[in-house]
Amino acid sequence: MAATRSELANAIRALSMDAVQKANSGHPGAPMGMAEIALALWGGHLKHNPNNPQWADRDRFVLSNGHGSMLIYSLLHLTGYDLPISELQNFRQLHSKTPGHPEYGYAPGVETTTGPLGQGITNAVGMAMAEKLLAAQFNRPGHTVVDHHTYVFMGDGCLMEGISHEACSLAGTWGLGKLIAFWDDNGISIDGHVEGWFTDDTPKRFESYGWQVIAGVDGHDVDAVNAAIVAAKAETGKPTLICCKTIIGKGSPNKAGTHDVHGAALGAAEVEATRAALGWAHAPFEIPADVYAGWDAKAKGAVAESDWNSKFAAYRTAHPELAAEFERRMNGELPSDWAAHKAAAIAKINEAAQTVATRKASQIALEAFSPKLPEFLAGSADLTGSNLTNWSGSKWIDGEGNGNYISYGVREFGMAAIMNGMTLHGGLRPYGGTFLMFSEYARNALRMASLMKINPIFVFTHDSIGLGEDGPTHQAVEQTATLRYIPNMDVWRPCDTTETAVAWAHSIEEAKRPSSLVLSRQNLPFVSRDAGQIADIAKGGYVLREATGGAARLILIATGSEIELALKAREQLEAEGTPTRVVSMPSTNVFDRQDAAYQASVLPRGVARVAIEAGTSDFWRKYVGLEGAVIGMDSFGESAPAGALFKLFGFTVDNVVAKARAVLAG
Amino acid sequence: MAATRSELANAIRALSMDAVQKANSGHPGAPMGMAEIALALWGGHLKHNPNNPQWADRDRFVLSNGHGSMLIYSLLHLTGYDLPISELQNFRQLHSKTPGHPEYGYAPGVETTTGPLGQGITNAVGMAMAEKLLAAQFNRPGHTVVDHHTYVFMGDGCLMEGISHEACSLAGTWGLGKLIAFWDDNGISIDGHVEGWFTDDTPKRFESYGWQVIAGVDGHDVDAVNAAIVAAKAETGKPTLICCKTIIGKGSPNKAGTHDVHGAALGAAEVEATRAALGWAHAPFEIPADVYAGWDAKAKGAVAESDWNSKFAAYRTAHPELAAEFERRMNGELPSDWAAHKAAAIAKINEAAQTVATRKASQIALEAFSPKLPEFLAGSADLTGSNLTNWSGSKWIDGEGNGNYISYGVREFGMAAIMNGMTLHGGLRPYGGTFLMFSEYARNALRMASLMKINPIFVFTHDSIGLGEDGPTHQAVEQTATLRYIPNMDVWRPCDTTETAVAWAHSIEEAKRPSSLVLSRQNLPFVSRDAGQIADIAKGGYVLREATGGAARLILIATGSEIELALKAREQLEAEGTPTRVVSMPSTNVFDRQDAAYQASVLPRGVARVAIEAGTSDFWRKYVGLEGAVIGMDSFGESAPAGALFKLFGFTVDNVVAKARAVLAG
Repeated sequence: MAATRSELANAIRALSMDAVQKANSGHPGAPMGMAEIALALWGGHLKHNPNNPQWADRDRFVLSNGHGSMLIYSLLHLTGYDLPISELQNFRQLHSKTPGHPEYGYAPGVETTTGPLGQGITNAVGMAMAEKLLAAQFNRPGHTVVDHHTYVFMGDGCLMEGISHEACSLAGTWGLGKLIAFWDDNGISIDGHVEGWFTDDTPKRFESYGWQVIAGVDGHDVDAVNAAIVAAKAETGKPTLICCKTIIGKGSPNKAGTHDVHGAALGAAEVEATRAALGWAHAPFEIPADVYAGWDAKAKGAVAESDWNSKFAAYRTAHPELAAEFERRMNGELPSDWAAHKAAAIAKINEAAQTVATRKASQIALEAFSPKLPEFLAGSADLTGSNLTNWSGSKWIDGEGNGNYISYGVREFGMAAIMNGMTLHGGLRPYGGTFLMFSEYARNALRMASLMKINPIFVFTHDSIGLGEDGPTHQAVEQTATLRYIPNMDVWRPCDTTETAVAWAHSIEEAKRPSSLVLSRQNLPFVSRDAGQIADIAKGGYVLREATGGAARLILIATGSEIELALKAREQLEAEGTPTRVVSMPSTNVFDRQDAAYQASVLPRGVARVAIEAGTSDFWRKYVGLEGAVIGMDSFGESAPAGALFKLFGFTVDNVVAKARAVLAG
Repeated sequence: MAATRSELANAIRALSMDAVQKANSGHPGAPMGMAEIALALWGGHLKHNPNNPQWADRDRFVLSNGHGSMLIYSLLHLTGYDLPISELQNFRQLHSKTPGHPEYGYAPGVETTTGPLGQGITNAVGMAMAEKLLAAQFNRPGHTVVDHHTYVFMGDGCLMEGISHEACSLAGTWGLGKLIAFWDDNGISIDGHVEGWFTDDTPKRFESYGWQVIAGVDGHDVDAVNAAIVAAKAETGKPTLICCKTIIGKGSPNKAGTHDVHGAALGAAEVEATRAALGWAHAPFEIPADVYAGWDAKAKGAVAESDWNSKFAAYRTAHPELAAEFERRMNGELPSDWAAHKAAAIAKINEAAQTVATRKASQIALEAFSPKLPEFLAGSADLTGSNLTNWSGSKWIDGEGNGNYISYGVREFGMAAIMNGMTLHGGLRPYGGTFLMFSEYARNALRMASLMKINPIFVFTHDSIGLGEDGPTHQAVEQTATLRYIPNMDVWRPCDTTETAVAWAHSIEEAKRPSSLVLSRQNLPFVSRDAGQIADIAKGGYVLREATGGAARLILIATGSEIELALKAREQLEAEGTPTRVVSMPSTNVFDRQDAAYQASVLPRGVARVAIEAGTSDFWRKYVGLEGAVIGMDSFGESAPAGALFKLFGFTVDNVVAKARAVLAG
């Protein structure tokens, strides 16, 4: 006999409360409250194949309220993904595939890491944008090889977070008809009933963004949720919000509807009471065969993917080059002739020897690399003309998704988390720009890219007091150092056109890390290099000018706009009889990954060191130690022309030389 | 003859374009587009006194679109503040009072620093909340000594930023009837006409928050704007948004209505054309006497303040203690017996010698200090039970503004910028909590507090892998180090109840800096200290355990949860014959401000050093140099019980001892 809907939904409840109880840690309330919504979606509508979690045209599912991780683990387990019950029994334990929040790369079928609220819905917006863009690029009459929905669950927390405004507003403007969001309207957040701090008319809010809103759905009525999903899919010109009234922890006779079920196990007694109330007679982690059978999505998934494979085969016959390109891009591979193209482009840029701002150098690099990379998807948080993230081939995206350039609006955090979602979707390489200062607005999304080991590229211009008159609110001081401290993030602060081109190439080739390009507003002089030096830029740090007249007695380490100062100070120091080496360190992160021998060849022990960077001094202690000196910025900047500021804050040849002399004197 | 309205408005246009032209840098468009709105507000409604910019009951005015700084500089100059024309002629120059964006503490009458978009409106929400709270605390029947409006100008950029959602949603819930916001609806942002990226139905959006919305106002019709302000003031139960349709750069015959007037000078030819079009025949920076007379607000302001002074005198007679308390709090002074109260509280906490989590130690400190500080205004971004920011005297704010505890909802950035606004208003000392990880959501507001030299207190709990099962999305790694890099921010990571109490006391006493308290989720053992050591905690770093059996051959430096490890490792190292000192460094920022002699007494040169902190290793190179060792975290954490994680990542006595031996061996 087939399992009933109640039994299917209660399987989620049982697995969730049992796993949380066993771990004595976790959030049973959201999974228990969303069980029927999950059943309506995963049981009826979700296009996916548990046998192949990476199938290109699967629907994407995002659990934006990531603390309800047992909901997705239950669903993945029940529908047939490679996530055995033993993993659920090891919920939140070391080396399990079931960490406390869903982590991308752990359990198959988890499309993104969620937990930091509001970013899941924003990733989902990015995925739906990616689907729209790829459909425009690859679908052809009679061939719709890109055609899937993005579904997202979210709670009150996501709706309170500012980033949900940024993402959902832009989703409305884009008319993302294949984005369907479910609001788990349970009226509870951690501080209690939300009336005291969250009284938005959320349906009206989303209507103001241009969404279809289906309000007043009983989230515990599978038929009602199903009807809402049908209506959502029927509206192809707007994203849909389905507002589901639910009871958090539903099933728990004494704790449902309270925040007691949010962040703690129910307790043994309440677990038993819940089993009794649900009529769930099975032992912990025991799921009857008919319940497994009712959830199993493998057969249906195999058929769906097989149908798509047939479609794709026909597409390949009709459009072989497009098909190959689709596969290349979805696999995250660079074009086969990339290496040659890159080398030629860098050589040409080096030969041109232009003195420009590194933001302009970045645009020059984009001009060289972009024609080879149709997967490049550029954009800016409303600073295109300042970030210079556009190039001659830039076409602003139109209503149908044609184009390759996005004006994200003044939405830095939203932009970054959307880029993460696009990257996770596959088929696109997004890069996006803002001022370096406003990396702070986006900061946790940059960290999430690093944590997920994905490779969007962040372009941060106006990188120091060198931006001048806009003043201290806009002048980065600590931002470069603090970005470097994000594990797995590559930060580049190049000093001229050639270093900028290499930084771009390195970022493009990096598969498992995001990159941040830190670029100047003001012009920086071109620096000549030999072929070996050009090759060494990609090592993150290298000898830019060797000491003359003997072994180096002093090493000046600098980045970006301060390289010019280091080179001039070197001239004076050498004239005074101090053989001085200049080390350019465009990426400390990349340099730190080189082998010890290379590092020691660049920074030999026992030679005095002085670092120069218009940013946090203390960062450089890792290279100059306690005995060396740093010319850096340890206060906020001021509003004034850049030249006046560099002088005011000690970025002068005289000061560098004086500090160097003091270090040499011991 | 009195100046006409056109002449009054055009004075703003002329000063703005002339100043930008002279600096060849700045944003003339917004001031020119908002001139009539400014005239309606500042010419008619704004309650202020240019003779005394600090008058307690003045209306607050915030220019959230801070790039239009010449608007407020023009208004301050024209209405009679101490901002002479020479300052406008030095717009954006070093040491002027007219930096590129309005900076708090530079020109009198600038209530907050703006430029980073969305934070101005959020500061304004905080100011209006402060007014409501202080009115509830201080007004008495027949005595309304707190009774002013908060006005804010904002553009499309502020409305796109997520933080505007957080702030305006909460403002609606609070029913801030004295908050009146003007939307400069000019349809232009830096990337061009906003239709491609900003299509919200903004009136509907604000209605969904519970605001009164006055839509469709012609922003160039002074009477229309005036009527809207009258209607806004009449609605006392809701904040009001006045939607003003404007033309950016209005007056410029060839550039108005385009983004060419946004971020650049008009150019000499267009300045002349604009003068001609406006019929403004005066030389640059020349304002006719009748225009000055028309704008002058000094006489009216003096009368308004004098009226209030009479009211306050009557209040003082009727409620002398309340009046004195109001003055103390508005002056930012601590109670006269604070020092004695503090000393007794710390002594008592030390005597109790409790082993608790430092988040709990924080609550214990709050329990001790709060009764003495009615200005304390507590809150949390929906994590009260986790942050332990409440205490036995906490009363959640009610609809009338009674109470002392705010549930901010899941709005970390909004909370921090609201706290900044409250602090700027005066009369309240806000502190607010979230997880340390989500300091990243709030990061730029933390920096703005530091930049403005104001003293809100940020409570960041769950400070490392020690939080355990929630996993890497929630486990801080680089956050403590990166907070320490914000200039002018004091970060404290105490190790037990006594250090936590001292950290709170130091933060309370700090007038010109914000403080961040970084606290553990897990229990940390109490550490005994003598009176001198307790006094030295306030120096940020001190000798917690001296080496025995000879001068120290090794110094172990640690903070917070790693102090226990340092103390245990010391025992083993001393047993092995290595005299070992343990230095506790709860605040590196404060320690770095001590004199060189004290620093050298704690960390004498020439003694091997090992630092231990469950955060970014590289940060500690400033104390251990290249020769020392650091036991830190340079990767992301994992989801597992805390004990398993500390072991996995090397936070064990054995590892510390091994690293120390290696350092000693050279």
